[in-house]
Amino acid sequence: MSKPTVVVWGGAGALGQEIVSELKKENATVISVDLRANSAADQSVVIKSDGTKEDAQSVLDAVQKVVINGVDALICVAGGFEMGSFNSPDIFAQLEKMYAFNVRSSFASSWVASHTLNANGLLVLTGAWGAFNKPTPFLSAYGAAKAATHHLTTSLAASTSDFKQGVSVVCMLPVMLDTPMNRSSAGPNDKFDDWTPLNHIASLISKWTKGQERPANGSFVKVTTQSGETSTSLVQ
Amino acid sequence: MSKPTVVVWGGAGALGQEIVSELKKENATVISVDLRANSAADQSVVIKSDGTKEDAQSVLDAVQKVVINGVDALICVAGGFEMGSFNSPDIFAQLEKMYAFNVRSSFASSWVASHTLNANGLLVLTGAWGAFNKPTPFLSAYGAAKAATHHLTTSLAASTSDFKQGVSVVCMLPVMLDTPMNRSSAGPNDKFDDWTPLNHIASLISKWTKGQERPANGSFVKVTTQSGETSTSLVQ
Repeated sequence: MSKPTVVVWGGAGALGQEIVSELKKENATVISVDLRANSAADQSVVIKSDGTKEDAQSVLDAVQKVVINGVDALICVAGGFEMGSFNSPDIFAQLEKMYAFNVRSSFASSWVASHTLNANGLLVLTGAWGAFNKPTPFLSAYGAAKAATHHLTTSLAASTSDFKQGVSVVCMLPVMLDTPMNRSSAGPNDKFDDWTPLNHIASLISKWTKGQERPANGSFVKVTTQSGETSTSLVQ
Repeated sequence: MSKPTVVVWGGAGALGQEIVSELKKENATVISVDLRANSAADQSVVIKSDGTKEDAQSVLDAVQKVVINGVDALICVAGGFEMGSFNSPDIFAQLEKMYAFNVRSSFASSWVASHTLNANGLLVLTGAWGAFNKPTPFLSAYGAAKAATHHLTTSLAASTSDFKQGVSVVCMLPVMLDTPMNRSSAGPNDKFDDWTPLNHIASLISKWTKGQERPANGSFVKVTTQSGETSTSLVQ
């Protein structure tokens, strides 16, 4: 796997772009999947929605067309965040959005992974430490959607038939990512040096992709930053 | 609360009908919410879908029209179950169904509860023991949807602003219910006396509604049956 083939679902977002760039530096063949193209990738698959059956099928078709030797890693970093009072009528739109952004994208990318990942491949889904086995009042829809993604990780990791032998399904649990969008909604007390730089995540993913420090199948990995120091820990 | 007012979301389903009948025996005023009416209830609100914003608003309007002194308990037993291989294209339809039946109905009923429940009221959501903190390979969509409902329970229970004082949010975790639908898909090795009779759940709900043996806010209650003996236990 000196030149791995990696699919980055959400590859045109802030974190996805960082991951695509890092993987390209490391000589991987990179396919970006997103609502828009990422020209830094070897190939971009532009999907129409957030992970419908049609999206998933179009990604599978594209990947099978360009990839000869299968996919070594599929990294899903698509997702979204929204908060708001539970009893506002906005909760319904919020639930639909959080479901589409987080749950549909997780299922669709995992489905593509189940059809394309090589033996000993890697599937990374993105959860949230803030919703991991803990309540999220004021973010009930987001928390429920992330709980669904966490649960999917455990089901896929426990399955004996969904993937080829030796595939690892890993859920990344960021605490707070330092993205332009998060900065734009930051409060006066937010300390950016407690937010995780995207290039740190990208380098972590790149290592895992190459088989270095890769967590075991079914792992949940918390990624947290304090005063500029980022650390990862296995929480399950 | 000698004559409590109770909303049963899913009141025309197998379990819902049993609950409505039991509550009527106990002199409660019962409002059934479902895709079809339940004539045993004092009032039926027929919704069009599985818990969209429009459904929730129509239920809220109807409840506020007929209920003068607020709602004492809202019981959501709407839900659905489907299994299948993860890598089949059917997973996408399955995910949409499991989300609609289980997650949307939980959010919509909880939203109505947040607007109508009296102080010291009760909200019961229906989870699944089989998906509670454990993987569900071959039922990944169902398990993820139930995980979302479990998570919603914790968020609502932890919230200080969504409900009036003293409201309890409780999640029921059946192992296996003895419904006609479950019987119709039973395998040769299924032992029906290990399945929980619906009238047992109905009598439990009726007690909780009256404040008897009501679990604390945030409780998860496993309901299981072995050789005809049903027991409940607090698992969180």
